[in-house]
Amino acid sequence: MHIPSLKQQFQVAFSYDVHFTEGLFNADNTLIRDVLKQDGGAEPRKIFFVVDDGVAAQHPQLMGAITSYVAAHADVMQLSGPITVIPGGEQCKNEPALVQQLLDAVNTYHIDRHSYFVGIGGGAVLDLVGYVASVAHRGIRHIRIPTTVLSQNDSGIGVKNSVNAFGKKNFLGNFAPPYAVLNDFEFLLTLEDRDWRGGIAEALKVSLIKDAKFFAFIQYNAAKLAARDMPAMQYLIHRCAEMHLQHIAGGDPFEQGSSRPLDFGHWSAHKLEQLSNYRIRHGEAVAIGIALDSVYSHLQGRITEAELDQIISVIRTLGFALYEPEMSVHLADAAHPQSMQHGLQEFREHLGGKLTIMLLEKIGRGVEVHEMDGQLVEEAVRKLQQY
Amino acid sequence: MHIPSLKQQFQVAFSYDVHFTEGLFNADNTLIRDVLKQDGGAEPRKIFFVVDDGVAAQHPQLMGAITSYVAAHADVMQLSGPITVIPGGEQCKNEPALVQQLLDAVNTYHIDRHSYFVGIGGGAVLDLVGYVASVAHRGIRHIRIPTTVLSQNDSGIGVKNSVNAFGKKNFLGNFAPPYAVLNDFEFLLTLEDRDWRGGIAEALKVSLIKDAKFFAFIQYNAAKLAARDMPAMQYLIHRCAEMHLQHIAGGDPFEQGSSRPLDFGHWSAHKLEQLSNYRIRHGEAVAIGIALDSVYSHLQGRITEAELDQIISVIRTLGFALYEPEMSVHLADAAHPQSMQHGLQEFREHLGGKLTIMLLEKIGRGVEVHEMDGQLVEEAVRKLQQY
Repeated sequence: MHIPSLKQQFQVAFSYDVHFTEGLFNADNTLIRDVLKQDGGAEPRKIFFVVDDGVAAQHPQLMGAITSYVAAHADVMQLSGPITVIPGGEQCKNEPALVQQLLDAVNTYHIDRHSYFVGIGGGAVLDLVGYVASVAHRGIRHIRIPTTVLSQNDSGIGVKNSVNAFGKKNFLGNFAPPYAVLNDFEFLLTLEDRDWRGGIAEALKVSLIKDAKFFAFIQYNAAKLAARDMPAMQYLIHRCAEMHLQHIAGGDPFEQGSSRPLDFGHWSAHKLEQLSNYRIRHGEAVAIGIALDSVYSHLQGRITEAELDQIISVIRTLGFALYEPEMSVHLADAAHPQSMQHGLQEFREHLGGKLTIMLLEKIGRGVEVHEMDGQLVEEAVRKLQQY
Repeated sequence: MHIPSLKQQFQVAFSYDVHFTEGLFNADNTLIRDVLKQDGGAEPRKIFFVVDDGVAAQHPQLMGAITSYVAAHADVMQLSGPITVIPGGEQCKNEPALVQQLLDAVNTYHIDRHSYFVGIGGGAVLDLVGYVASVAHRGIRHIRIPTTVLSQNDSGIGVKNSVNAFGKKNFLGNFAPPYAVLNDFEFLLTLEDRDWRGGIAEALKVSLIKDAKFFAFIQYNAAKLAARDMPAMQYLIHRCAEMHLQHIAGGDPFEQGSSRPLDFGHWSAHKLEQLSNYRIRHGEAVAIGIALDSVYSHLQGRITEAELDQIISVIRTLGFALYEPEMSVHLADAAHPQSMQHGLQEFREHLGGKLTIMLLEKIGRGVEVHEMDGQLVEEAVRKLQQY
């Protein structure tokens, strides 16, 4: 055999904008109109909306506002099918019937690859809607309208989407950048305190591993942030989103390697969410995961006690818990599927390859390691329990 | 609101090789070993095999050969789970239970993003296996081992994967380049004549729209190809694969636009497959689609009668039918979902945007148009019926 191999090599360019606004569906707000017109099309575009039921309940005028908005811009867009309300929160990602329901809609309303599939809601709804949009017809244009702090500064602005399967978070998914992200700060006004606070955890995380100045901002404004100061929150979301986008573009956008540097604090967070049957929400779990890996970093002599104290103090001032009982169940037994430490193995398995965990070298700088010492993890948990 | 928008822009690089060999699982063939070692890993890699039942039936020694091969290279690879045989042919893409079965295997055997998920079979099995690999854990490495002419020169070497849903071909899928493609010519020896012939249609297609010299090769060798001459077939596969890869890399790999120039002859082909309940196989349908759009191109004055005669003559010499009864059902009624002409609307809908159809300007050069004249399509069908 002397038939030469063929080498395939190419690059695919992706781009999208993350916009910030208030009153997205107000009659005089042209953002959606302007964003759709960027595609250069001549005819009105089909647009399909999926809304998180939590958002729908908090904003009873939303459905009417969407309908009026689309009608007022009939030269640019037309509704395809009814505005569809689905249950929000992490549990929605456990429901294959919701995936099927949205795929049915794509089929029934003839939504094609140049139509717009819009998700309005928290991170879980956006993950699910993005997943459906990414696999139907090999990818429909999807627009994300994140309504929580967490989704506006982190989960809703990136390139990943997913649903859960086999009891495992994000077992099914892929990488599919959105067409655009529209952050409307007005949605934040009606958030429960838990969800307002929850999203701050991801900003804290990115500040700790990448930007000491941003950590200083959060530290200085922690009480204001906890008290729902909107200008402080707007700055926090914008800066966190900016760093998140820079990280994706500058690194390994589709995670072809083994490392996931932005997942500081996440190996335990994912597992705690699951162990608590999602009673602990993602941001709350991440705050605990940050606390845990910060204590661990200190126990390993990587950060000083003074640095650790600053971190713990910020987390508390923001109003997060440092400890949940699920952390101690089967704690010494990393092989037990219901132990938090089993999360290390699941985390490695999800990413593939070598275990890679981000720890702290100092405030504002992370460091990757490839093993965690089970004894030290136990010690860190005990320390958090006693704070 | 004066918070500036954030612009996200990045490129993702993809690369993979298409190798040609004979006796892939022979003890002394190091191709698979060499390909796996390219990942730079130190430990044996997990590898999971899915085999088309048609291939398993024709190659009863295959399972044993795979097992022996993996065992002989235990320093580089280890089998994860049993070698899994699934039904082949287009019907397998209509079975959600098969997707679920393979996802179950990913979960059960802890197949992670750095493991290898290998499909051995015709294009349909490879599409299905690739789809599962692309969504499990947001993408497991997948290796394609195409066993038909069609999959070795076309469907198995590209970046698309899919399953069918709602009675629509490739309704679910995405773009996910394989880790590698391994073309073993020995698999071609046991193909039915229909499948040997079927794959030639895609080569004929690419020659007609892009390369008059390659058309001349097919024309000159048509009788030999029909008589299963292996050297002629090896050249045909290599050249077709090369052009297909060049087309992907040089164009719009993830089909973000509306055009799909390689789909010459495909709008009717996809529909005829479906209308015949897949009695007409893909390559056979493409040969008819090429004949139809060539006659149409001639009726529109785009190609000469002499050129059309050459094309029709090659298609016949290769042994393809030019007409099937499904073409005439509801022929004048493009709005009828069971008419071939309804395929135009479905084709547009699948791609989104404006209808874009490739026709011929001359042998070796295609031309894109944005509408098809229903009367002329009818006339072309009648002409094919009377040949």
